[in-house]
Amino acid sequence: MEECTKHILVLNGPNLNLLGRREPGIYGTDTMEGCLAALQECFPMVKFEYYQSNVEGELINKLHEVGFSYDGVVFNAGAYTHTSVAIHDAIKAIQTPVVEVHISNVYQRETYRHTSLITGACVGVIGGFGMDSYRLAVEAIIKL
Amino acid sequence: MEECTKHILVLNGPNLNLLGRREPGIYGTDTMEGCLAALQECFPMVKFEYYQSNVEGELINKLHEVGFSYDGVVFNAGAYTHTSVAIHDAIKAIQTPVVEVHISNVYQRETYRHTSLITGACVGVIGGFGMDSYRLAVEAIIKL
Amino acid sequence: MEECTKHILVLNGPNLNLLGRREPGIYGTDTMEGCLAALQECFPMVKFEYYQSNVEGELINKLHEVGFSYDGVVFNAGAYTHTSVAIHDAIKAIQTPVVEVHISNVYQRETYRHTSLITGACVGVIGGFGMDSYRLAVEAIIKL
Amino acid sequence: MEECTKHILVLNGPNLNLLGRREPGIYGTDTMEGCLAALQECFPMVKFEYYQSNVEGELINKLHEVGFSYDGVVFNAGAYTHTSVAIHDAIKAIQTPVVEVHISNVYQRETYRHTSLITGACVGVIGGFGMDSYRLAVEAIIKL
Amino acid sequence: MEECTKHILVLNGPNLNLLGRREPGIYGTDTMEGCLAALQECFPMVKFEYYQSNVEGELINKLHEVGFSYDGVVFNAGAYTHTSVAIHDAIKAIQTPVVEVHISNVYQRETYRHTSLITGACVGVIGGFGMDSYRLAVEAIIKL
Amino acid sequence: MEECTKHILVLNGPNLNLLGRREPGIYGTDTMEGCLAALQECFPMVKFEYYQSNVEGELINKLHEVGFSYDGVVFNAGAYTHTSVAIHDAIKAIQTPVVEVHISNVYQRETYRHTSLITGACVGVIGGFGMDSYRLAVEAIIKL
Amino acid sequence: MEECTKHILVLNGPNLNLLGRREPGIYGTDTMEGCLAALQECFPMVKFEYYQSNVEGELINKLHEVGFSYDGVVFNAGAYTHTSVAIHDAIKAIQTPVVEVHISNVYQRETYRHTSLITGACVGVIGGFGMDSYRLAVEAIIKL
Amino acid sequence: MEECTKHILVLNGPNLNLLGRREPGIYGTDTMEGCLAALQECFPMVKFEYYQSNVEGELINKLHEVGFSYDGVVFNAGAYTHTSVAIHDAIKAIQTPVVEVHISNVYQRETYRHTSLITGACVGVIGGFGMDSYRLAVEAIIKL
Amino acid sequence: MEECTKHILVLNGPNLNLLGRREPGIYGTDTMEGCLAALQECFPMVKFEYYQSNVEGELINKLHEVGFSYDGVVFNAGAYTHTSVAIHDAIKAIQTPVVEVHISNVYQRETYRHTSLITGACVGVIGGFGMDSYRLAVEAIIKL
Amino acid sequence: MEECTKHILVLNGPNLNLLGRREPGIYGTDTMEGCLAALQECFPMVKFEYYQSNVEGELINKLHEVGFSYDGVVFNAGAYTHTSVAIHDAIKAIQTPVVEVHISNVYQRETYRHTSLITGACVGVIGGFGMDSYRLAVEAIIKL
Amino acid sequence: MEECTKHILVLNGPNLNLLGRREPGIYGTDTMEGCLAALQECFPMVKFEYYQSNVEGELINKLHEVGFSYDGVVFNAGAYTHTSVAIHDAIKAIQTPVVEVHISNVYQRETYRHTSLITGACVGVIGGFGMDSYRLAVEAIIKL
Amino acid sequence: MEECTKHILVLNGPNLNLLGRREPGIYGTDTMEGCLAALQECFPMVKFEYYQSNVEGELINKLHEVGFSYDGVVFNAGAYTHTSVAIHDAIKAIQTPVVEVHISNVYQRETYRHTSLITGACVGVIGGFGMDSYRLAVEAIIKL
Repeated sequence: MEECTKHILVLNGPNLNLLGRREPGIYGTDTMEGCLAALQECFPMVKFEYYQSNVEGELINKLHEVGFSYDGVVFNAGAYTHTSVAIHDAIKAIQTPVVEVHISNVYQRETYRHTSLITGACVGVIGGFGMDSYRLAVEAIIKL
Repeated sequence: MEECTKHILVLNGPNLNLLGRREPGIYGTDTMEGCLAALQECFPMVKFEYYQSNVEGELINKLHEVGFSYDGVVFNAGAYTHTSVAIHDAIKAIQTPVVEVHISNVYQRETYRHTSLITGACVGVIGGFGMDSYRLAVEAIIKL
Repeated sequence: MEECTKHILVLNGPNLNLLGRREPGIYGTDTMEGCLAALQECFPMVKFEYYQSNVEGELINKLHEVGFSYDGVVFNAGAYTHTSVAIHDAIKAIQTPVVEVHISNVYQRETYRHTSLITGACVGVIGGFGMDSYRLAVEAIIKL
Repeated sequence: MEECTKHILVLNGPNLNLLGRREPGIYGTDTMEGCLAALQECFPMVKFEYYQSNVEGELINKLHEVGFSYDGVVFNAGAYTHTSVAIHDAIKAIQTPVVEVHISNVYQRETYRHTSLITGACVGVIGGFGMDSYRLAVEAIIKL
Repeated sequence: MEECTKHILVLNGPNLNLLGRREPGIYGTDTMEGCLAALQECFPMVKFEYYQSNVEGELINKLHEVGFSYDGVVFNAGAYTHTSVAIHDAIKAIQTPVVEVHISNVYQRETYRHTSLITGACVGVIGGFGMDSYRLAVEAIIKL
Repeated sequence: MEECTKHILVLNGPNLNLLGRREPGIYGTDTMEGCLAALQECFPMVKFEYYQSNVEGELINKLHEVGFSYDGVVFNAGAYTHTSVAIHDAIKAIQTPVVEVHISNVYQRETYRHTSLITGACVGVIGGFGMDSYRLAVEAIIKL
Repeated sequence: MEECTKHILVLNGPNLNLLGRREPGIYGTDTMEGCLAALQECFPMVKFEYYQSNVEGELINKLHEVGFSYDGVVFNAGAYTHTSVAIHDAIKAIQTPVVEVHISNVYQRETYRHTSLITGACVGVIGGFGMDSYRLAVEAIIKL
Repeated sequence: MEECTKHILVLNGPNLNLLGRREPGIYGTDTMEGCLAALQECFPMVKFEYYQSNVEGELINKLHEVGFSYDGVVFNAGAYTHTSVAIHDAIKAIQTPVVEVHISNVYQRETYRHTSLITGACVGVIGGFGMDSYRLAVEAIIKL
Repeated sequence: MEECTKHILVLNGPNLNLLGRREPGIYGTDTMEGCLAALQECFPMVKFEYYQSNVEGELINKLHEVGFSYDGVVFNAGAYTHTSVAIHDAIKAIQTPVVEVHISNVYQRETYRHTSLITGACVGVIGGFGMDSYRLAVEAIIKL
Repeated sequence: MEECTKHILVLNGPNLNLLGRREPGIYGTDTMEGCLAALQECFPMVKFEYYQSNVEGELINKLHEVGFSYDGVVFNAGAYTHTSVAIHDAIKAIQTPVVEVHISNVYQRETYRHTSLITGACVGVIGGFGMDSYRLAVEAIIKL
Repeated sequence: MEECTKHILVLNGPNLNLLGRREPGIYGTDTMEGCLAALQECFPMVKFEYYQSNVEGELINKLHEVGFSYDGVVFNAGAYTHTSVAIHDAIKAIQTPVVEVHISNVYQRETYRHTSLITGACVGVIGGFGMDSYRLAVEAIIKL
Repeated sequence: MEECTKHILVLNGPNLNLLGRREPGIYGTDTMEGCLAALQECFPMVKFEYYQSNVEGELINKLHEVGFSYDGVVFNAGAYTHTSVAIHDAIKAIQTPVVEVHISNVYQRETYRHTSLITGACVGVIGGFGMDSYRLAVEAIIKL
């Protein structure tokens, strides 16, 4: 079944455009460009789209745009994970399955990062494996 | 008094662009287009403007834009109802009265939807009557 | 459809017998008598009954009495809104739809008035429009 | 000892007059009349009195009335279980032992029904067995 | 000024009809009759009325009845002190000053008795002096 | 229907092996041996099994072992009542109905004993009647 | 019994040395000197001592000093009412009865003033009657 | 690097021995035997060990046993996820990396399952993908 | 050191475009234009840039844009101060020091304005001095 | 206006006498003596008084002493910031404006240091700029 | 009195079998063997028994076993300190005095380690002195 | 090493000057004088200083005075244990190690005594052994 082409959106939330530059002790030095190239290499049959925005509402716009036609969304909502009911509702409102990813293990960070407002709307969650979290999420979507 | 023309903005927040498509068990199958047509028919003397955005700040921009000249705003802030102090402040900062509406009865849903950060800045609130909540809000504004 | 006769109970909870006399800064100077007369004028086809009690259990008795035959209840539960699980259960137990109304906007008052124990059992809620809240509630019931 | 006549009050709180009619998914279709007949048959030596009120204070009045002469009270306080300090105090103030009963298992319902303000004043609690909870409570009183 | 006649209502809430009989370790063995006689002797110029009810709404009724003509209310709301927003509103709604009294020191009892919903609506509070709390409250009203 | 043989497990959690020896002011001086003998005498048609463990996981093992064949479990989970999500899950996972019992009235003890994590998974709860709680639970199971 | 001489300490906590000068909207324009003169006039048989300190520990020192010989302490602990466990312990440690007084009704002020850490250690509390609270407290002590 | 043999423990906590039998609506009908066979097929170079216990302390024993020599632990702690500080400490105390897995999405279940006491001690977490969560966790360990 | 040219961004969050127009009782009648002119006059060596947005994500974009080259940011995040983890992360992610400013004293306003999610990521905070807060913040940056 | 002489009290609370000696990682190695000298040099027209005490009540005494004649108080209340209602009341009770300062950014420290009981009584707050916080506070006072 | 032989159980809870190996930054590099040898040398008259288990219920079993004959228990309950009501009950149920010990100062660690469920059942607590905490506890028991 | 002379301060907080006189049910009848004599006898090589104050700030002064030269402080902070951040800071600011002692087991008393604000700043804590807690603390300091 993995043979057929799948459309998957990799969606990144606030501050993830600084990956590789921002707090490397937490987020590592890998860039998103490298990550996407590795994903494409690893999953040649998948057609990836990448989108990043710091604006909560633009992430919602993107979810609406792909949410009735794509096969999956790999979504790192960054800080909006902990504050956005609107993104929760957007994920619930669409039909495409969304997998939540985190680069770091949020439970090893500040307490207010232990609460997620969006996990309940997603299929599942993968966190703590650095950039490899994205690859595992794509795997998970393919197997759904 | 209902005879004179009034300018009323119907303002919808995040995910309400999907009305008719999104979780019909909660939001029904009516669309916003149908709702607006019915409003115009019901209140022929009112000049309606409609605006929807998924971006919190664009909702604030719109409130600022109409907030010193229109006669009323019928506002369904969606999920931002429960998280946005900034929208509360925008409603407080303008002069046009704002009526909060909800399609569903938020008290029959998740607990975090029972808290509103914006009601205190509005004139009043109407919720639970499906699309008819919008019509009742227009009525309320006309009577203010 | 509004042509056919409807039986609607207007039900008022504690201290609302003092309307027009009590804290006019919050509740205004209109009396309930005036409000009922205006309702009858506005909705000539509706047969209204009015009942007020300061006793929680008598409000429940009244809900039971009309709750399997009337077309709707417009209910301002006053302070019991924030404390009565028993009234919540009574509304749930009957078949007639109940619309919750408030004269003032409870979110502009003390924090303990922001919590409602009964909204979840009602069809919907209308609050903040002074005595006009009652009229809007009747409209809402007629449209149900 | 079970041979001698005992006076037991079966006391029901708010909305329990609707038993058999109200939310049968939760409360079943048995009526209180049937329950009382079964109790009398099951315990022929016991002299039962039955009282129901939706008024918190009338339940207190009844507890005072029987509380210095009866052998036991089987008390289903309904929603007042979760809100009434006054009933707690009434049970504490009298000498007759009171057994709290519930038809449904309150822990399978809304969170605010998990808290009891009156259990601490009662001898014990029996809940979740439908109308059979009443029979078990009478048994418990006879054995005290 | 103490020479002129004053009308004062002594108002007692739930379970206070059992004074002298109920938990004497907390409430003592004095009865309310004795207390009222002592009050009349102590303040011969005052015309006292006494009212007790276990029903929250009847206490509200009484407050409404005297609240626009009497000179003061000495009010021991018993357990409703901790649960009744409706009584708070009733005291706020009337013009006669109300002094809250307690026989025992509620802070030496269960934690849920440390919270008062009605003190904020009263002129002041006197508690912990046994039946003498009533006398002190009458003194306080005379001096207002 | 009580005529046919039933298999019932009486299951006791931590520290209940010390019954008769432990804090007699709270738990009385009766032993579990006496209790089981009385149960057998009272219900000659029932085949009782008794099991006690101080180990949370062994209680789960036992529930699994009997949970697809026995007619009922009378379960006093002791302190695990207030802390064990795992036992809650075990009760949910099996098919045999479980009745929760308590010897003392937990609402007359420390606040942290007022919360139960397992009641919601049980059929019902019986507490406060000393060793007689076990007998009442067996009765309840027979009637289910 | 009021004939015999009594030694009573009037003890004032932080900022009460500014009475008459400080926030007259809350505390009035009366000074403590006037209050003490009025007390002496009202109770000629009582020997009053007055002490004020802004230092928590000096208030404790004073309570220790008089607490095994005086007949009573009238204590307005000011802001320490809401924060001082040490003063609670000092009142508990001495033998002289202490009556807590407040000039204003603390329940009409900020929420953090609704909690008292010291009431539970006092005989009773009197609050909300302006400077007359002191007189009532002396009366209460004389009657103890 | 994936070529070399790795030792991985698959560790299951309470009630997971009932997989395939227990609440199939939540956990599906797959058994753990099938899952392990699939894992071995998928990762022929890995040497798997499987261990399940309902006893919190035996899970700790197992973590200690393998925690200084194995290459990874795939750990589904079941209900102990939400209550066990001791397991958290055990994971912290060992050197082998542990990946937390969940079959269901715990954020779609009861609120008390949204809190994890062990995630902070693990490398990362994978949840919501049914039995495929185990496969993804093994992948993640191989990539570490 | 203050002689050399510095690049400083003055960054304003939601509703601050209405300064001079919005709730003058809280925010005064000064406009931001006047404030910026005064800043330039006061600090002729500083090159100021001004940016305002009501959109949370656009504020983050701006912080990213200047955050690796400017000498400082004077940031009044308005209502986002109390709700935005994403802005907190943006400030943490950049290298330019950020000073938080507030026009009013947020501790004299609603309780939910007492909590800041962004102060911990800033160098320091200055609030309560009206428009002069901006000048003090520039001073602070120059001295860093 | 800055030309005229101003009297300003620099007031330091508990443990600030150890500045330069205490936890230099948080408080730096500067001493208060150096800070005061720098302030005098920077503001030659201001007459500074310096006072430090570890005793809460002595800080209150000092506020009372200067609070009706000085032009301003620069107040670092140290740990009392988080616990003292009495100091809050003292600031409210005087007429001289008080500016709260902190050397470190309290939001980067323990959670219990994020709450301030005194900010609401002060004109404004300045924190996080090391000893320069004092200079900025003097500037702020001069501009008031 | 120290001359006579005493039987003391040294009881260690979860993960303490790894002492010397586990997180040496917190627990040091000493082993329990060394500690026990030192204890025996220090107290030659005491007969020590040592027991460690990771299983909560086995710790309870051991407490029951020794709890009616030994002279004391030195108990480091490890993580169960913060979660086990069952161990609290076991300590309460036995007659031998139990002294709680901790190697590290739990108040310098995570917040959830600041709460103890077992201290209230023990004679006393000693914590923060490394392995010397055990010696001090033995001393304390001998002096009881 | 115990042979060399050590300087140790025994520091007592509020109300501990009443030891032997105050609530003997909790604190016993021993006096501090007896305790100090016993300490000197037990540790002849130690030079003890004793200081007690009811004033929080004077305890801080004393800690500062000895905190850079003494070998240890045995500190019973009494009620300030639960309320004083300032004392926490003082202990942190000095170099001499401080051992917290309590005469009673605070976990057997009121809930608000279960929280300590100072333990985290101390080396360790010893509580529940009556006056022997002081001796154990001296032992602990000698061994540090």
